[in-house]
Amino acid sequence: MNSKLVLKTLGLLLCCEAGAMFPSLAISYAEAGSDFRAFLYSILITGVIGFFLVFIKPQSFKVSQREGFIVAALGWLLLAVFGALPFAISGVLPHPADAFFETMSGFTTTGASVIDEVEALPKGLLFWRSLTHWLGGMGIIVLTLALIPSLNIAGLQMYKAEVTGPTKSKVVPRVTQTSRQLYKLYLGFTIAMIVLLKLAGMTWFDSFIHAFGTVATGGFSSKTASIGAYDSLMIELIIVFFMVACGINFSLYFSVIRGKKLAPLKDSEARIYLSIMFVSTMLIAVNLINAAEFEAGKAFREALFQAASIMTSTGFATADFNRWPDFSRYLLVILMFIGACAGSTGGGIKVIRIIILTKTAVRQLIKLLHPKAVIPVRVGQRVMPPEVVQTVQNFFILHIFIFALVTGFLTMLGLDIISAFSAAIATLNNIGPGFGLVGPAATYSSLPAIAKVVLSLCMLIGRLEIYTVLVVLTVRFWK
Amino acid sequence: MNSKLVLKTLGLLLCCEAGAMFPSLAISYAEAGSDFRAFLYSILITGVIGFFLVFIKPQSFKVSQREGFIVAALGWLLLAVFGALPFAISGVLPHPADAFFETMSGFTTTGASVIDEVEALPKGLLFWRSLTHWLGGMGIIVLTLALIPSLNIAGLQMYKAEVTGPTKSKVVPRVTQTSRQLYKLYLGFTIAMIVLLKLAGMTWFDSFIHAFGTVATGGFSSKTASIGAYDSLMIELIIVFFMVACGINFSLYFSVIRGKKLAPLKDSEARIYLSIMFVSTMLIAVNLINAAEFEAGKAFREALFQAASIMTSTGFATADFNRWPDFSRYLLVILMFIGACAGSTGGGIKVIRIIILTKTAVRQLIKLLHPKAVIPVRVGQRVMPPEVVQTVQNFFILHIFIFALVTGFLTMLGLDIISAFSAAIATLNNIGPGFGLVGPAATYSSLPAIAKVVLSLCMLIGRLEIYTVLVVLTVRFWK
Repeated sequence: MNSKLVLKTLGLLLCCEAGAMFPSLAISYAEAGSDFRAFLYSILITGVIGFFLVFIKPQSFKVSQREGFIVAALGWLLLAVFGALPFAISGVLPHPADAFFETMSGFTTTGASVIDEVEALPKGLLFWRSLTHWLGGMGIIVLTLALIPSLNIAGLQMYKAEVTGPTKSKVVPRVTQTSRQLYKLYLGFTIAMIVLLKLAGMTWFDSFIHAFGTVATGGFSSKTASIGAYDSLMIELIIVFFMVACGINFSLYFSVIRGKKLAPLKDSEARIYLSIMFVSTMLIAVNLINAAEFEAGKAFREALFQAASIMTSTGFATADFNRWPDFSRYLLVILMFIGACAGSTGGGIKVIRIIILTKTAVRQLIKLLHPKAVIPVRVGQRVMPPEVVQTVQNFFILHIFIFALVTGFLTMLGLDIISAFSAAIATLNNIGPGFGLVGPAATYSSLPAIAKVVLSLCMLIGRLEIYTVLVVLTVRFWK
Repeated sequence: MNSKLVLKTLGLLLCCEAGAMFPSLAISYAEAGSDFRAFLYSILITGVIGFFLVFIKPQSFKVSQREGFIVAALGWLLLAVFGALPFAISGVLPHPADAFFETMSGFTTTGASVIDEVEALPKGLLFWRSLTHWLGGMGIIVLTLALIPSLNIAGLQMYKAEVTGPTKSKVVPRVTQTSRQLYKLYLGFTIAMIVLLKLAGMTWFDSFIHAFGTVATGGFSSKTASIGAYDSLMIELIIVFFMVACGINFSLYFSVIRGKKLAPLKDSEARIYLSIMFVSTMLIAVNLINAAEFEAGKAFREALFQAASIMTSTGFATADFNRWPDFSRYLLVILMFIGACAGSTGGGIKVIRIIILTKTAVRQLIKLLHPKAVIPVRVGQRVMPPEVVQTVQNFFILHIFIFALVTGFLTMLGLDIISAFSAAIATLNNIGPGFGLVGPAATYSSLPAIAKVVLSLCMLIGRLEIYTVLVVLTVRFWK
């Protein structure tokens, strides 16, 4: 392994992180906030360590898959560790497990929180917390669209063809080119949303916070009651629109820019994603009207917001869905597992994988009748190569196994089954709120420290499509 | 399709079923039971219809996979429909959904019941109810060990080599030969158990009932409180021994008979099965001692019985495990999914499949590091062919999807999530009791009729390894 290049890259990441803390330092200074010193020290520590690492001179700039895996896994981990410094130093989250959990939740765009009263936070910290979402969201689209295809994992290779830049022969120029386009797109979404939220009546500060939380499908809010605190239909509609848009494969927006205006509606994954969201909204609304005697308008409004928020793995809430009837809660659990589209900022198993899994299972039935027939698995016009199908199946199986193990671990610590399994789902799929103890009206603060550490790792495993983290944990990786 | 041969075979099954009702008729006559007429009519209806079908003359005796699938799926369904007649006619279960549920639960060796007070049942019906278990258990080992390998489904083909009789060239003689050996073995287990239970203090009648329920890993008891009603350590140990033994691949007992006395302990599936059961028992016992303040001896005794009963998919109970702490309940859920060994009377996903799934997922991680390496999946000395791995993965995915769909359907009917998901697991894996409304101290009687019908189909789908039922439901099957 090219360890020196890995260290240099990690150093670069830390320098960027130190730089990203400056806006919070400025806000803190302007507001004379209690977190000013915390940011100053954090920038110093992060910046100095990053600075020394950047000065390492690697013998070569050759990279293989190994370097890719380790930079992704260790990079996210280090960002969370150093990003936790402001929370820890300021005394807002004195326990390291809490500070680490909150920051990992930010960078993985999960949005699970251990802060019971968000309004009590100094503004600099509040901004930093939401900025981790935004940076994490940007990181994840670059990773899945630009980097993972070349790492050839997680069964998402089929997108390789769609996002190739002008240079196809070398990985690095293509990654750089694609990444630049993605940054612009992501920035465009964010700015548009900030302006719209401001027009809809939010303060500039809140507009930034919620734009960061939405385009990253993260879910951190500046209000303890989340979006419910505004009680504004306009704000809810803006957020729903951007949550749904950011749950679609970003490469489809390249096609939009290139003139194919309806590309997102013609993509089979995006269509099924939108259909699932529509059907779930309808079912939840009808269930709320029937079982919980909601007035129809309120039922549809709450159903739409929650379904979009959960399926895109954002985790904003306008209702305490933990108190909804069990069929609605069941539907939300299913949406948590399905998740958004691949190549978006959303989490979960991803719609494309669910499509492949379903088609493969159906194909097996046909194969029983015609054992010698070769029946390819198609998504849209594309034929999925057998390795992709195999990788997707293994992904699903690992996902279910990890979910089951973590649920078991949490019940061993004494959590009830509902809280345990929903905490495992909500972190592994990068959603945020679950049910029971970790429902939308509560936080993860009541959990034991060891549970917070394990759930932080779940967020990382989920965010990096499982394989990226697990492969680094194998013995063979280090040989 | 050779429809005439299929009808003839189904007719033969019905004639056997009518014949199997005679012991109950005799018991009913001896006890002057209220169910005498019910059995008389049932035998007449079943026998006459079966008789007419048997007289169909097929043009040929050629069979293909199609005939195998349809006979297995329709056979089990018809046995349950006609086997329900005594319950319905006697007035014990006047609603057709109840009678069908109870009989399907019997023939699929599930043991889920809608009868709230078992002691109130006439003895003839009680005997018939348990006899359906015994017949179903015999059917399932013949199906999985003799028939399914030739149907080439469900990823259980690897057992083909182990159970071949002297004639390898033709399917039918081998099936007949293997089946005969299996009948003897199964009968031997049953007789041994009846004698032991009698010696341990049960009445002859109860010994039959519980031997039927155990060797078939079914779970119907003649007591509402199940095995807990006896409060006898000796009886519990006998039942645990036979549950565990009947959860092991029956083909291993052929090896024992042929002189390889330790075959079941050398088989990798059986060893992992026993290890999982041992570890779960320990974990549950410790959890009961810590969380529920059980006395140690009682904790181990209850933990062992329940773990063995659930993992083998029997469903007998000596404790209301619905009231256990959540970690213990979680472990039972995992055991429900894992299930027993392939080629046994037990249900669930089966240990061998869990082994294959785990090894394949681990292999994927190694493949990421060495993309061109060909790494076979081994179980014991055997290399699993890729088609087997693929089939096992599809099986698991279908299993999880069906589980999720049925849970959703039940919550839509108004069940709480715990009752819904545990009812889905407990029927799909052929266990019997679940948690909540369908816990071991309750029955399925409170569920809506439509839920009972759907859960009956779940039992059938689970028992016939999913594919056998689903393939018959495809359009292509009938073309």
